[in-house]
Amino acid sequence: MRYVSKNTVNRLPKYLHYLQDLKQNGLTRTSSSVIAEALGMTASQVRQDLSAFGNYGAQGYGYDIEKLIANICEIIGVYQPHSIAVVGVGCIGRAVLGHMDFTSYNYRVCAAFDIDPNVIGTTINGVQVYSIDVIEEILQRHRVDICMLTVSKSAAKSVASKLNQLKVRGIWNFTNVNLGLDKTETVVENVDFLDSLLTLTYYLKKDI
Amino acid sequence: MRYVSKNTVNRLPKYLHYLQDLKQNGLTRTSSSVIAEALGMTASQVRQDLSAFGNYGAQGYGYDIEKLIANICEIIGVYQPHSIAVVGVGCIGRAVLGHMDFTSYNYRVCAAFDIDPNVIGTTINGVQVYSIDVIEEILQRHRVDICMLTVSKSAAKSVASKLNQLKVRGIWNFTNVNLGLDKTETVVENVDFLDSLLTLTYYLKKDI
Repeated sequence: MRYVSKNTVNRLPKYLHYLQDLKQNGLTRTSSSVIAEALGMTASQVRQDLSAFGNYGAQGYGYDIEKLIANICEIIGVYQPHSIAVVGVGCIGRAVLGHMDFTSYNYRVCAAFDIDPNVIGTTINGVQVYSIDVIEEILQRHRVDICMLTVSKSAAKSVASKLNQLKVRGIWNFTNVNLGLDKTETVVENVDFLDSLLTLTYYLKKDI
Repeated sequence: MRYVSKNTVNRLPKYLHYLQDLKQNGLTRTSSSVIAEALGMTASQVRQDLSAFGNYGAQGYGYDIEKLIANICEIIGVYQPHSIAVVGVGCIGRAVLGHMDFTSYNYRVCAAFDIDPNVIGTTINGVQVYSIDVIEEILQRHRVDICMLTVSKSAAKSVASKLNQLKVRGIWNFTNVNLGLDKTETVVENVDFLDSLLTLTYYLKKDI
């Protein structure tokens, strides 16, 4: 598979959500120009993005929605199940756990970790909270692929480094701290609320 | 100013954060290729993005970092202050409030609203929580520009519709519900945690 830019990858979830909306509305096919208009892009960019993973559209027909959804799901890799552990059970950890439907994309939250004795041993949203001291054993037992990092800023780097040592494949980073794992085998995806607030602010003063 | 695509606008915060990192590391100028490599883009795309707002780079010199930061801040509109109200003081509302430094970009969180009598009258992170019944008066008093929507899914649409009636300029939507305000004057920016998890998942199985 040829190199696909981070920007194209970032857009895959947006294509996926939009196509699922269309499917829910009973549609079976669509075109690059319809997708482009909904997502604020150009049709040629949509075609280019989707062709980076193989040519799924047909001239004069467009895209078969169900097939395109399946293709994008396969590209992203959500047909295989992924195990998630929550590292740091503060307000943000609880909020994301309570807020999201993980199961629809084959994610399973299987463990949580904290250092607070009042939280260890409890469950949140049905997920057991363990002491961070036993993280190595629990991550192995559950074959955890992804750790959601929701510890305090001050602990972020050291905990991330530990997760990297434990060969965690992915860190979903909510700490707003640059974890410095760029050259390692652990993939980091940063969640930054500020980005969307800045984007919103841009549009406030425009009348387009 | 000519039409700028949503994708270009979405990238502005990323340019801003990266340039501020460079500045903090003592650098004064940079190039489109350096920015492109850091953000996983092509240099020509960076030049195209930034030129959409005026040509700030000089051949053979590149970009003056401080000037480019100031330009992007001005484009986004963060030199003028914005007032934010939090609508729905659940776990996600509290988490974002406690998690973010709003002041560095001239945002001020000036009020919060809820329907729970146990929460009304309290303060969170120094912000007063009011009954949703007085939202009209309080939004006017504080000249609120942006409402952070963190109510339950079931209340999302009706509360958003109320905010639109009250002429709130922007809704920062954390509810994962399509608010259906596309044709109105209220700008909506959706925050979807799932997107970043899907992006992370894509990279897990790649060895690039």
